[in-house]
Amino acid sequence: MSDTLLMEKPQITYRRHVEPGDLEAVKEMAESTGFFYDFEIPVALELVEDGLKEGEHCGYKFLFAEINGKPVSYTCYGHIMGTEAGYDLYWIITHNDYRGQGIGKIILEETHRIIKELGGKYVIAETSGLEKYTPTRRFYVNFGYKLEAQIPDFYKEGDAKAIFIYRF
Amino acid sequence: MSDTLLMEKPQITYRRHVEPGDLEAVKEMAESTGFFYDFEIPVALELVEDGLKEGEHCGYKFLFAEINGKPVSYTCYGHIMGTEAGYDLYWIITHNDYRGQGIGKIILEETHRIIKELGGKYVIAETSGLEKYTPTRRFYVNFGYKLEAQIPDFYKEGDAKAIFIYRF
Repeated sequence: MSDTLLMEKPQITYRRHVEPGDLEAVKEMAESTGFFYDFEIPVALELVEDGLKEGEHCGYKFLFAEINGKPVSYTCYGHIMGTEAGYDLYWIITHNDYRGQGIGKIILEETHRIIKELGGKYVIAETSGLEKYTPTRRFYVNFGYKLEAQIPDFYKEGDAKAIFIYRF
Repeated sequence: MSDTLLMEKPQITYRRHVEPGDLEAVKEMAESTGFFYDFEIPVALELVEDGLKEGEHCGYKFLFAEINGKPVSYTCYGHIMGTEAGYDLYWIITHNDYRGQGIGKIILEETHRIIKELGGKYVIAETSGLEKYTPTRRFYVNFGYKLEAQIPDFYKEGDAKAIFIYRF
């Protein structure tokens, strides 16, 4: 029997505030996936910086899932301005070394629990319609999201935006 | 013959930079329409403040239409992050005293001209599906926008978001 099978199931702890080390952690998580364009990662980091600077007043909320004190997955979400109870899921990333263990599902469940607690009635997740993002779209559908709308040629020609919605 | 009919057609001039007086001007234009919720006007003003502070580097671009040096209509628009050539039309407001003269149409034409010049390939305008916004939706359709998608119960229950798109 290999060491892996003898290992205990890792204990996940959650953290809702942002720490300075998260800049490096988010960069590492995002790069590990190979899923993001170079210009996208600074956008994710900018939101982390906003979270560090503005704390509770920041429009962007975070949830980090840690194993042995190391962030392995995170979500960034927030109230959609102008809506009564809508929330956007801006980012959900799981470190490539921890994929395939259902961590994305459990961090999204916890994120939804918090959004409900905050009075949210639905969550919107947007992603690309490209072949490459089939696993991402399947993840949302399996979770219970519904493909509400698609905007062709959104990101660039031939690259549609798919808008998924989960209603509580 | 009334004085109104004897008046010359007013000369419209455009301005693309933001001036401190625009805070008051935008507030006045927005309030004059009776179309916005109280919480929406500070959002419009926040973007003007960003424009004042950050100037050219600001993600929000502006176009003001002035008659005799007074802003009577404005648009706020910007590149959609993560897209190659997409632009959002965030705000288009014409002062109530100047409605019905086609000013909305000509400022939007000028806005589109600038967006094309910047390399934009499409413009997205979002509005409510409520009865009250029928003139707004008709304005976009008459202009040549296409209703691309609708998200039911978006702003609040029974209040859908209508997503219009104009492709160059």
